[in-house]
Amino acid sequence: MADSRDPITELVNQLVRLPGVGEKTATRLAFFVLDAPQSLAEELGRALVDARTRVHRCATCGNLTESDPCRICADARRDRSLVCVVEHTPDVFAVERTAEFAGVYHVLHGLIRPLDGIGPDALNLASLVTRVGGGEIEEVIVATNPSVEGEATAMYIRNLLSPLGISVTRIASGLPMGGELEYADRATLGRALAARVRL
Amino acid sequence: MADSRDPITELVNQLVRLPGVGEKTATRLAFFVLDAPQSLAEELGRALVDARTRVHRCATCGNLTESDPCRICADARRDRSLVCVVEHTPDVFAVERTAEFAGVYHVLHGLIRPLDGIGPDALNLASLVTRVGGGEIEEVIVATNPSVEGEATAMYIRNLLSPLGISVTRIASGLPMGGELEYADRATLGRALAARVRL
Repeated sequence: MADSRDPITELVNQLVRLPGVGEKTATRLAFFVLDAPQSLAEELGRALVDARTRVHRCATCGNLTESDPCRICADARRDRSLVCVVEHTPDVFAVERTAEFAGVYHVLHGLIRPLDGIGPDALNLASLVTRVGGGEIEEVIVATNPSVEGEATAMYIRNLLSPLGISVTRIASGLPMGGELEYADRATLGRALAARVRL
Repeated sequence: MADSRDPITELVNQLVRLPGVGEKTATRLAFFVLDAPQSLAEELGRALVDARTRVHRCATCGNLTESDPCRICADARRDRSLVCVVEHTPDVFAVERTAEFAGVYHVLHGLIRPLDGIGPDALNLASLVTRVGGGEIEEVIVATNPSVEGEATAMYIRNLLSPLGISVTRIASGLPMGGELEYADRATLGRALAARVRL
């Protein structure tokens, strides 16, 4: 693997660009592909380009979709007065799996991360303000992760939208279902205590 | 991700075919690709197909190579009387990195695994017998892993080649350099004792 124009090295170098894939994993994957039927490389290669080419952001909510508006924004049965704000598209699938949410979404495509130079302008926020300005939205649920960046982004969104006269809420943090106090981290247990609800 | 013709699902399904990639990892990789610049999907897709198309087995030794014969078989400075037999191509790189071996290789592309229905016929063994029959080879070093399948394959090769009047040897097993007796597994330490050498 001396020459960087060698196709095996090139494949390893390309695989290393994926998150969580180091040189050892990339080498193992590359040799798996080389030993597998040619159809595997062709089908995987096509799926990569195809997905990236055909999938775009929904102009309304920012969700990754083939159609525009996306399936959820186009669904007349969804409650347009209720918007769930998430960091990225996998979170939309996560919320959909709960079958607890009948509203629509807004995908930020990131969180505010000052240390990485990612400010509010880098997020899909301007279109959220526009949507809220439309007058149809009554409540925005901020469902970013309960992490430092997720909390900071939630606070930013609250400050941004509260003056517009709508209700801005945050998903609850606390012990996960089935969790044990004994093993809960201090921050989670502290939050669970502070956010206690009347029985 | 309901429809299997949806390009995101298709990409996830293709990624799951890779070893060590489950549905969660595949989903994470897929969304990384969808959020990355289009060039990443295109370059990775091209590298996959390109490597699989351009890389073939060397007709002499079975090593994966763009040229035939491969770089090592074509190198006039290599000692053709000495052949190192390995399971697959990454092992060739591993032996080359030691800079201890000046002979040539023979790549089996597998080990005998009766439980998986992989017999000797599935390996690149017939051409090894042909090579040895050519008369130039004096010693065959069997460098398969010191695993059950690697040992069984080594024994099979010894029985196959010994009647041809050449020397068939096996790489040494024992404690790895820097290893500690205290933490060595029983089989390794047992092998290290049995294979002791005079100081």
